[in-house]
Amino acid sequence: MSLIVEREDVPRGDGADRPLRIGMVAPPWYELPPRGYGGTEAVVATLVDQLVARGHEVTLVASGTPRTRAQRHVRVYEEPPSHLLGSSVMPELVLAAEAARALDGLDLDVVHDNSAAGPLLARGRAIPTVVTMHGPVGGDNGDYYRRLGSSVDLVAISHAQRRHAPDLNWVGTVHNAIDVPSFPFRADKSDTVLWIGRFSPDKGAHIAIEAARRAGRRILLAGKLSEAAEKEYFDRDVRPLLGPDAEYIGEADSQLKRELFALASCLLFPIQWHEPFGMVMAEALACGTPVVATPRGSVPEVVRHGETGFVVEGVDALADAVTRVCELDPAACRRDAEQRFDLPVMAAGYERVYRMLAEGSETIRSLTAAPAA
Amino acid sequence: MSLIVEREDVPRGDGADRPLRIGMVAPPWYELPPRGYGGTEAVVATLVDQLVARGHEVTLVASGTPRTRAQRHVRVYEEPPSHLLGSSVMPELVLAAEAARALDGLDLDVVHDNSAAGPLLARGRAIPTVVTMHGPVGGDNGDYYRRLGSSVDLVAISHAQRRHAPDLNWVGTVHNAIDVPSFPFRADKSDTVLWIGRFSPDKGAHIAIEAARRAGRRILLAGKLSEAAEKEYFDRDVRPLLGPDAEYIGEADSQLKRELFALASCLLFPIQWHEPFGMVMAEALACGTPVVATPRGSVPEVVRHGETGFVVEGVDALADAVTRVCELDPAACRRDAEQRFDLPVMAAGYERVYRMLAEGSETIRSLTAAPAA
Repeated sequence: MSLIVEREDVPRGDGADRPLRIGMVAPPWYELPPRGYGGTEAVVATLVDQLVARGHEVTLVASGTPRTRAQRHVRVYEEPPSHLLGSSVMPELVLAAEAARALDGLDLDVVHDNSAAGPLLARGRAIPTVVTMHGPVGGDNGDYYRRLGSSVDLVAISHAQRRHAPDLNWVGTVHNAIDVPSFPFRADKSDTVLWIGRFSPDKGAHIAIEAARRAGRRILLAGKLSEAAEKEYFDRDVRPLLGPDAEYIGEADSQLKRELFALASCLLFPIQWHEPFGMVMAEALACGTPVVATPRGSVPEVVRHGETGFVVEGVDALADAVTRVCELDPAACRRDAEQRFDLPVMAAGYERVYRMLAEGSETIRSLTAAPAA
Repeated sequence: MSLIVEREDVPRGDGADRPLRIGMVAPPWYELPPRGYGGTEAVVATLVDQLVARGHEVTLVASGTPRTRAQRHVRVYEEPPSHLLGSSVMPELVLAAEAARALDGLDLDVVHDNSAAGPLLARGRAIPTVVTMHGPVGGDNGDYYRRLGSSVDLVAISHAQRRHAPDLNWVGTVHNAIDVPSFPFRADKSDTVLWIGRFSPDKGAHIAIEAARRAGRRILLAGKLSEAAEKEYFDRDVRPLLGPDAEYIGEADSQLKRELFALASCLLFPIQWHEPFGMVMAEALACGTPVVATPRGSVPEVVRHGETGFVVEGVDALADAVTRVCELDPAACRRDAEQRFDLPVMAAGYERVYRMLAEGSETIRSLTAAPAA
């Protein structure tokens, strides 16, 4: 029903398609790529590098020292104003004003805006403005993009996200991606189950422990436990459930995370909210590790039920699924991650959106109404 | 050097000038007029009513229940999101998106934007966008308007404000105004000196006490003392100076403030920062009360030295001036307030800016380079 690009569709720069000139606007808060926090900044940095690798010309508007492969870098703040995040509107406005000034004089095909205030500029722009919905589509966020109407061309990070605000001006869906080759594939799994995430009731760590215990499996929990709300949830709902078969091992860094994924018999992902895209599912699959998850948010479109995991509701069904993951083929999980969640796939997805809008050879509506061939 | 409209210049809608169609954008945070806080909202509400009274057609984009005389009201939030002030950028963005959507279809002569994000829309608009600099012109604020360049037509609230950022795209200066007739004129003054304001070191309450004491005059202090920083300053620098001749009387409401102004021999205003416009000076003058102040920010252009007050530096000079205010004519103070700081004067100032930009009969630059006739 929408624009998802599978690997076999990836245009390969075979000469038929001319390179695109892309204005890329990042949020102002962190460097690209970010050294720590900055989820959107990480996605944008990756996308920039991929687009350049595909032969496109990218002008990046962002904060801090340029460390991407963009041919042009418009630096808004020398030092990213991270300390103002959540307390000042000004960095978003300064960045948008700078984006307007810097990009308007350039001969671009498309602007891809990932900032908050930047999309306001779309109305005054002759070329299309693509906006990825990195955040929620409800509340004020939804109202904002609804009011921007057809001035912006919205890209969802999952079908689930689109379904939550079907009236927005969607032009495509491009899943977030991970660097699949950087994740170790391992076919030979342990019996241990893994839960990984932020300690929020929404992420269901307490449910994961119950499910693993009923399945008679040991579970390791890794994740962020630093904010007050996280500690409160952990102390109230998770700590009482810990034991020799359910162990909290701290926050896993990039290396440990990969080892945990690779060894686990499955990732238990009993998500309790409609998360637009669950990155850890893609990471688990990349390691050849099936995912056992509840059917919320992006889960049903990330996990292929019965092939790369099980999508079920309730502790008993989750426990039953945990005992059955041995039936699934780790190689199929890895292959699926390569085909759907690898960085070049995401870049190809955006390239296709850009080209569709820039060339205007077909109407946006007819393209988005038909599935990708 | 810039566009200040004196009363004798006020166009009177004598038929020669057609009414203007004005899109007015308020900040999203408070109702218009605000019931409590909301300085910018108060100015905008007043301006709207004055413009309508002058025969213009105003479309107001704002939060909350419409309580101005605007012919059209575009309501963004039913309940103004005041609780999000300082923590969320979204209300500013939602308001700007709504302003774009609501105003673009209308046949307007000019948009006057008083919000933070709204000025980003100017670039995509065929008609001029006037922006009043209600806040500071330094730091991120200055950078923002500098980047917006000539897409916005900036109005300063004082010459002093312009001097602090002379490179911005100023098209005029219009002083903030007060409802002069609502302030009681009194020629017969007490010997008491008044200080009124927020308890911040910048406002110089401690200096006012010292100056009054050296002049041998009693001083009353009225003002806001609710935030931690205000209390800290008060306890450290003001309270130790209080005595029978220097008394803190709490925060004055609208009525008490008028009585205090009317009775005082003078307002002591030893401002320590370059405040763009000091409203209390205009209020004192309206009551026929001279102002003794330090030469910072808007002071030298609000107070006519030797006529409506004294502009001097240092405690001794302030004390000396306090003993000499009896030489000044209260009626001259009142008259000056009527001629320069009354609401119709402000409205006429904005009307002139709108008309100049909308009719484009002369270039903006040639007008702003010449003083108002």
